[in-house]
Amino acid sequence: MKALKVGIIGFGTVGTGVYKVLQSFPNVEIIKIAVKNINKKREIENFDNNILTDNPYEIVNNPEIDVVIEVAGNVDPTFDILTTAIKNKKHIVTANKELLAKKGSELFKLAKENNVIILYEAAVAGGIPIIMPVKTILCANKISKIAAILNGTTNYILTKMSEKELSYETALKQAQELGYAETDPTGDVEGFDAAYKISILSTISFNKKVDINKIYREGITKITAQDIKSAKELGYTIKLIAMGQVLEDGKIDVRVHPMLVARKHLLAKIDNATNSIMLTGYPVGDLVLTGAGAGAEPTASSVVGDLLVLSAELESSDSPLPQAVCNHSEIADQIDIGETYNEYYISITASNNPGAIGIIGTICGKNNINISTIMQKGINEDNTAEIVVITERSKEADVQNALAELLKSNNIKNINNLLRVMN
Amino acid sequence: MKALKVGIIGFGTVGTGVYKVLQSFPNVEIIKIAVKNINKKREIENFDNNILTDNPYEIVNNPEIDVVIEVAGNVDPTFDILTTAIKNKKHIVTANKELLAKKGSELFKLAKENNVIILYEAAVAGGIPIIMPVKTILCANKISKIAAILNGTTNYILTKMSEKELSYETALKQAQELGYAETDPTGDVEGFDAAYKISILSTISFNKKVDINKIYREGITKITAQDIKSAKELGYTIKLIAMGQVLEDGKIDVRVHPMLVARKHLLAKIDNATNSIMLTGYPVGDLVLTGAGAGAEPTASSVVGDLLVLSAELESSDSPLPQAVCNHSEIADQIDIGETYNEYYISITASNNPGAIGIIGTICGKNNINISTIMQKGINEDNTAEIVVITERSKEADVQNALAELLKSNNIKNINNLLRVMN
Repeated sequence: MKALKVGIIGFGTVGTGVYKVLQSFPNVEIIKIAVKNINKKREIENFDNNILTDNPYEIVNNPEIDVVIEVAGNVDPTFDILTTAIKNKKHIVTANKELLAKKGSELFKLAKENNVIILYEAAVAGGIPIIMPVKTILCANKISKIAAILNGTTNYILTKMSEKELSYETALKQAQELGYAETDPTGDVEGFDAAYKISILSTISFNKKVDINKIYREGITKITAQDIKSAKELGYTIKLIAMGQVLEDGKIDVRVHPMLVARKHLLAKIDNATNSIMLTGYPVGDLVLTGAGAGAEPTASSVVGDLLVLSAELESSDSPLPQAVCNHSEIADQIDIGETYNEYYISITASNNPGAIGIIGTICGKNNINISTIMQKGINEDNTAEIVVITERSKEADVQNALAELLKSNNIKNINNLLRVMN
Repeated sequence: MKALKVGIIGFGTVGTGVYKVLQSFPNVEIIKIAVKNINKKREIENFDNNILTDNPYEIVNNPEIDVVIEVAGNVDPTFDILTTAIKNKKHIVTANKELLAKKGSELFKLAKENNVIILYEAAVAGGIPIIMPVKTILCANKISKIAAILNGTTNYILTKMSEKELSYETALKQAQELGYAETDPTGDVEGFDAAYKISILSTISFNKKVDINKIYREGITKITAQDIKSAKELGYTIKLIAMGQVLEDGKIDVRVHPMLVARKHLLAKIDNATNSIMLTGYPVGDLVLTGAGAGAEPTASSVVGDLLVLSAELESSDSPLPQAVCNHSEIADQIDIGETYNEYYISITASNNPGAIGIIGTICGKNNINISTIMQKGINEDNTAEIVVITERSKEADVQNALAELLKSNNIKNINNLLRVMN
């Protein structure tokens, strides 16, 4: 068996993890590794710095290299680097969810033209096997729904807020101190990371190209300790859910936002930095896949897994893995958040007078919203009261109209939060 | 793309499910279906009975057929039928866990000699993608441990015993009435089915041939309502667990038995007929895969998934899927249950006198068993008492010795149950 020759672009936590795992596979030869800083001290035994370069084009233009492993992240300059690699007939293994979400169509088209393949198991949910299973052993299925926890940082923060009754700010700070959140946490806490991942996963599950720019995205920064407490009393846990579904008319609904998840739901039980994907399809029914969604080792499992499958296939045939070729010519018809139907949790601050609940009920009714629970949560010092409303299944646009109308009433002081509910 | 020509052997629930799902895939042509009774009325629209035969050899000897789907079950005569198919250069897709567990080595050897492959995703955990992921995208991992709920019938019975405080007998009867258990439930309730599945899964996960005859197997028939109640009080749920692990010395420990599973463990939350597999490997860490473990549709998902992957591969290359070839030349060195270490739950009936607990403590101590909890569960009419003991990690042989010694004491009336504990 001829050794597969690879170049690695990016040598941070994940790149180093991949390097270490590859040491057990003598049939893979690492030719070159592109890094930002050649002179940085590396904590790896018997490491020869001569393998390093600070010019990634030395890898993608190296005729000796068969496969480029890209774990550098970012769109710019990575997109240009990988298009060069593809034009030079190199197969790609990447963990770069942002690049695939934003430039996947272009990359896959170019890969097809050049008869190379792009594998990206590590781009979604780290070590959890999901991309290859959806493309191979689950391919008999019509997948109709995905609901997933795809971001470990936000799940960690929400878990600590719930366990220790912390504010968002305190939980974020602790997550940063422990390395679960970055100094600039925007990509995680505002839901960008989860949106990249659900765009990729929805595209391969529904066989239609999902546009990242049409995904509704809402992060966890507005979740308060009071929301978590109220949710708990009602039998729910708050999770950042990335979801995608095919509607009856064939339109596609893809979004990322926090949800109240019923305590008996398997996703409600996924704590800390763990990721979990619930996938519904015919004929398979419901599947739930749970594991580490990030970290050097789980990510390396997927990167090296892709590489070894590719290596075995290249050994047996010149043509790429047929099931691994992306070919989503059809564009998903994505609906706007206003067109979606959900159950809702609404937290309202109202005047503490007998009319407040009547007004909420009346305005909801006028807007076609049936209320299933309404709870007063105690009186504030300024004689206002916190009121929590749970609605039956309603149209988002109707709910938004009702909230606007509520805010015009003298009795309603503030809409504190609007969250969707998953039972 | 040339249509793949298949023959189906077995046309019960699963066979019919496979037939129905295949109607959506015009590139698969069903040439012949072997059934027991040709004249039986089939509940399938536009079904042409001419496709049926009661002689499966008409399928395996038919030169037109490329792939044989076997969903008939049993070892005899299925083994002979499939060996004939393989010698006739037909690829096999099978759901037959018993056949693979008992005759897998012979079949895979023959398949290799004839350059055909055997796929069997449906043989373990129905619709849950586990066989192909372990062989492909997870192949960078050293898998060290599997703990799984692989039998839906027993999980359903144990769930109902727990939810409704039923006896085993009542829960079994209800499961039979609802179609969750067969008239002769032995294969499920005595753990045979789970043992077949864990032998297959351990073999591919540990890359060593596990011998079904060396798997310790204990069913759920001796679990009482009192055991379930005591377990609950202690924070546990009782589940039939199929487990396999690689020990530090490289020996393999594979077994099937009921366990007290700590309530916070993800497997404790798997209810009714659902299956779930927890797999621990390096570098991936812990993965939990959950879904329907049986039923026509989930099983068809795996059978048709195998078939479509095979079809795509045959289209691109003459050689079989490299990653799908079984090649476990090494034999697992399986340890006996006496050599295993576990925490234990022991239910004892003792005389209601002050010496009983002292005797239990003394005899456990003499046999190197540390007790972590000892609880008296109430006094019986005959002035005996139920005592529940939870031990720290101990050697099974020591525990068995202690139990034999306890039974010799006048104060100990009975050992009601001995169960292992998973935290």
